[in-house]
Amino acid sequence: MNQQLTKINNLTIIGVGLIGGSFARAVRAAGLVKHITGCGRNLDNLKTALKLGVIDDYSINIKEAVSHADVIFIATPVGSFQSILAQVKESMQADAVITDAGSTKVSVIKAASDVFGEVPANFVPGHPIAGTENSGVEASFAELYNDHRVILTPLEQTNAQSTQLISALWEATGAQVVTMDAHHHDLVLGATSHLPHLLAFSLVNTLTTLDEKQEIFENAAGGFKDFTRIASSNPSMWQDICLANKEALLEHLDNFTQDLQKLRTALNNNDGNFLKQVFIRAKESRDDFINKEIVNKTDKT
Amino acid sequence: MNQQLTKINNLTIIGVGLIGGSFARAVRAAGLVKHITGCGRNLDNLKTALKLGVIDDYSINIKEAVSHADVIFIATPVGSFQSILAQVKESMQADAVITDAGSTKVSVIKAASDVFGEVPANFVPGHPIAGTENSGVEASFAELYNDHRVILTPLEQTNAQSTQLISALWEATGAQVVTMDAHHHDLVLGATSHLPHLLAFSLVNTLTTLDEKQEIFENAAGGFKDFTRIASSNPSMWQDICLANKEALLEHLDNFTQDLQKLRTALNNNDGNFLKQVFIRAKESRDDFINKEIVNKTDKT
Repeated sequence: MNQQLTKINNLTIIGVGLIGGSFARAVRAAGLVKHITGCGRNLDNLKTALKLGVIDDYSINIKEAVSHADVIFIATPVGSFQSILAQVKESMQADAVITDAGSTKVSVIKAASDVFGEVPANFVPGHPIAGTENSGVEASFAELYNDHRVILTPLEQTNAQSTQLISALWEATGAQVVTMDAHHHDLVLGATSHLPHLLAFSLVNTLTTLDEKQEIFENAAGGFKDFTRIASSNPSMWQDICLANKEALLEHLDNFTQDLQKLRTALNNNDGNFLKQVFIRAKESRDDFINKEIVNKTDKT
Repeated sequence: MNQQLTKINNLTIIGVGLIGGSFARAVRAAGLVKHITGCGRNLDNLKTALKLGVIDDYSINIKEAVSHADVIFIATPVGSFQSILAQVKESMQADAVITDAGSTKVSVIKAASDVFGEVPANFVPGHPIAGTENSGVEASFAELYNDHRVILTPLEQTNAQSTQLISALWEATGAQVVTMDAHHHDLVLGATSHLPHLLAFSLVNTLTTLDEKQEIFENAAGGFKDFTRIASSNPSMWQDICLANKEALLEHLDNFTQDLQKLRTALNNNDGNFLKQVFIRAKESRDDFINKEIVNKTDKT
């Protein structure tokens, strides 16, 4: 598909952090773009991005940053989309393709619909399933998306050429592109990403309120470190995601809480067999998930 | 302390898995023991341990395995302690030192008290804060305890020489030894290890019941993988731990559930500020924990 892709003259990235910066590095490394403009509210971060060669120039003014763009990539917290898209609309070229990396898709599509009246045909909603707990352009690297999945959630009215262009860019980063309905995306990601983040944040917060806080952290092992890694994620970003995917997240949270209460009852009744059955089912699924992941990676090499 | 440690003639390890096997490898590598006898119910595992050079001989009969032991190290699931100690008692040398690696300490001490009438002065309860989600002797390695903490919970009647001997052995594995009251140990580990395991098992189990199960696992990212790593742990072992530390675990679980319900209410009310404050507190504590860990490791080198 890369062979069919005309080199993009101007790519504008709004939000040059871990996600936007890594995208810029990867498409540049693939030789797919001539000029990259960075845009964001944090001037220091943009200066760093320029110094690191991630972008070629920058502006803190969205209208200025997108006016010559052929492709506009939005990689900011999802709560900012309405305001950003309103400014993009004012000065973008009519045939520019817009895409994003927002962690929720229904809320992003609604923001586009609110701003443009209807979701533009050249807007391709997207979400790379990749990231680390670090933020900022200094945390970005070209290989972030390699062997990772990117979910695109085009609508009925989305222009097929736009979707193909965005797919090709993502494939050039080493990612595997899949398409999915936006509601379905939010339900799936609510379970696999948003709920775990909420639980990790909540657990660490609860532990900080205990008298034994100091000793708890001092005696924590690798299991705790891994389990809570996502609690080191960006709080503002996760506030946005939780609110943007509220309905699906509440549904998953209630399912989880109900099942957890069943475990509590079993524990309280010394029902070891119930505990063990739950633990076995969980271990089997989790081991299966890891084994499939290894098989997938092997297939690719 | 190692210089004062007379080489141990006979060490018997009951349960030659990840924990027992790694201990054997580490004390052998440190040159602290002449002969290691392995004991367990799984003959194949013992044969593998012998082939790997982790042990020098083995028996599936506990009484036989401990009859010549100077030090007896029990590294089996905590639910098995009462039965094991009863057999140990029948044939151990009177001056042999017993220690263990059980994840809960109150239940282990109670088992010893039940079997011996009172907790023997030469029994040193212990718990290495180290492990992986893998089990069996093939998963063991000499460096497992390096830079990790080992908690000993000696009682008032515990012989100081016995505690010193076990401390010295652990220090020879590269571990940092601390002592703590057994009840306090169980409260602290309930928060930092047992509750996270319960939550991880519970979450994965809940996800397996959803219609979207297949897609959920297919679209899971690194965050999910880390968050659920401990759900790949040994189900029988964790059944034992949960039941053995039931009181502390229920207390932590109820605290956690109450706080999680507050987050749910905030989410339902679109109270983004509440969410953000919780996320910020969690991130600060977790980042602080990681930074201290890095500092501790740096201090040692």
